[in-house]
Amino acid sequence: MRQSLQPSRDRADYPFVHRLRTRFAETDAMGVVHHAAYLPYLEEARVEYLRSIGHPYDDVRAAGEEGREFPVLEVWVQYRGALAFDEEVDISLVVGAATRTTFQIAYLLSVAGQERATAVTVHGCVDRSGRPHRLPQWVRDEFAAGPSEGDATG
Amino acid sequence: MRQSLQPSRDRADYPFVHRLRTRFAETDAMGVVHHAAYLPYLEEARVEYLRSIGHPYDDVRAAGEEGREFPVLEVWVQYRGALAFDEEVDISLVVGAATRTTFQIAYLLSVAGQERATAVTVHGCVDRSGRPHRLPQWVRDEFAAGPSEGDATG
Amino acid sequence: MRQSLQPSRDRADYPFVHRLRTRFAETDAMGVVHHAAYLPYLEEARVEYLRSIGHPYDDVRAAGEEGREFPVLEVWVQYRGALAFDEEVDISLVVGAATRTTFQIAYLLSVAGQERATAVTVHGCVDRSGRPHRLPQWVRDEFAAGPSEGDATG
Amino acid sequence: MRQSLQPSRDRADYPFVHRLRTRFAETDAMGVVHHAAYLPYLEEARVEYLRSIGHPYDDVRAAGEEGREFPVLEVWVQYRGALAFDEEVDISLVVGAATRTTFQIAYLLSVAGQERATAVTVHGCVDRSGRPHRLPQWVRDEFAAGPSEGDATG
Repeated sequence: MRQSLQPSRDRADYPFVHRLRTRFAETDAMGVVHHAAYLPYLEEARVEYLRSIGHPYDDVRAAGEEGREFPVLEVWVQYRGALAFDEEVDISLVVGAATRTTFQIAYLLSVAGQERATAVTVHGCVDRSGRPHRLPQWVRDEFAAGPSEGDATG
Repeated sequence: MRQSLQPSRDRADYPFVHRLRTRFAETDAMGVVHHAAYLPYLEEARVEYLRSIGHPYDDVRAAGEEGREFPVLEVWVQYRGALAFDEEVDISLVVGAATRTTFQIAYLLSVAGQERATAVTVHGCVDRSGRPHRLPQWVRDEFAAGPSEGDATG
Repeated sequence: MRQSLQPSRDRADYPFVHRLRTRFAETDAMGVVHHAAYLPYLEEARVEYLRSIGHPYDDVRAAGEEGREFPVLEVWVQYRGALAFDEEVDISLVVGAATRTTFQIAYLLSVAGQERATAVTVHGCVDRSGRPHRLPQWVRDEFAAGPSEGDATG
Repeated sequence: MRQSLQPSRDRADYPFVHRLRTRFAETDAMGVVHHAAYLPYLEEARVEYLRSIGHPYDDVRAAGEEGREFPVLEVWVQYRGALAFDEEVDISLVVGAATRTTFQIAYLLSVAGQERATAVTVHGCVDRSGRPHRLPQWVRDEFAAGPSEGDATG
């Protein structure tokens, strides 16, 4: 297991938050959001985070020879309380544990301040043909400049 | 509206059938399969049909310069009875109404002989860069050789 | 086929619009949003429309004995141009063709004013146990008060 | 983190295997199966496993007062190699680490004998209203009778 981040359960530890609303299509016959639907939520939050730091993922992918993708190498989710249809979910995230070739993101999902889930994703870096690369310099700069693993997670 | 096929409600009118089982992830908070999940069912049946006539869709797509995709230009579904979790669904299909650039497929979804839905998809033909093309000759041959629109639909 | 609305291709014909952003998870190996992902988009727009007229769908469903759901009886989508990852899609909608037991919604999907798809959904009315009911009075009032089928669609 | 199983990378360590075929709808713009699609694969394998031991999940859920659901409390997936469209995936699984209220399942996903992913899910036990319960006796018997954690995982 590569995952080394321990997601904090305190929203103050996260520098970025993205809000989305659950869809009816994402619920299941238990009457709550299906556990698989959380992964696109995390992804949507990552995409908004990259936009917020001036690196829209669509641009990152489309940069010709320099185009890069950040595939998910590992995902871990702990479901602590169900999400209902039509709830507004705050997805807090913080980047950490960057190496030359991978970085990790910790997430806290909450509704009206109530914790619902925590999660971690581990990402690599490949070009459009799928060949592994080092992380771009801006990623290392940005993520090194961000909260360190020790600071940002509890 | 391009769609011209009227799906028959008699399984005997369909030369091909593919069976699949509904997933829990495909249900919604109404306790039945969400209406959007039917479209991947139709797609899975199309893929199995193409395999059955010796043209696996993966090969059709990967044939280099001659590689082709059959994007959905139009879809129509009529939901006649809900699908529950873990039901085995028979997806009957018949191709018809082929022109030089499009073809249509009619579908009947049933469970243990009971009708649950009918559907029609209309498909075009593009290369891997998205440029429109005429249908490959094998498509025109195959679909002309198949049941005619008049024969196959009620 | 119950569907009788013909969706207008002029956004001015639609009294309500909802904007959403496409997710990476919704794309497919053709590099664009998969055709099945449009159905949850239509649903999300319907849910926001109901909220905008003071009848959040979650409340409509949860109203005890009077709780109602509006299952999709029929859907039709015409795909006129692909949606890419990270595009902001305007989903315009108008309700019409209401009867005592069903209503229809026409949709126009556009990006930066460019048409991408049109669609129609037909809805019934059931209680939480799935038993059919007449539409609630507020639905008939609201949808009768809205643009008529002739006015709203081209 | 509750997860304690370490999934073996040797198929011989798994007493049950379920095969499924990837769908085109499950691919994304990277040209491979989206990472979120693996969770319904694991679920489908669990459902087939329960059927194979004489406890179809649909029956388990529908058993009136005794009806039980096994919600996912935690999921971990390590992606070791991409899945392509139309590949046949073998999902091997083994149950372990059962307590009075939770059990865990380890998974190995492979294609033609080549490892593609490993995963673990942790499950609780609730009734249809969502109230937590001890695991049914048959679960404890079955999972205690199965391979022990030490035997089954590497």
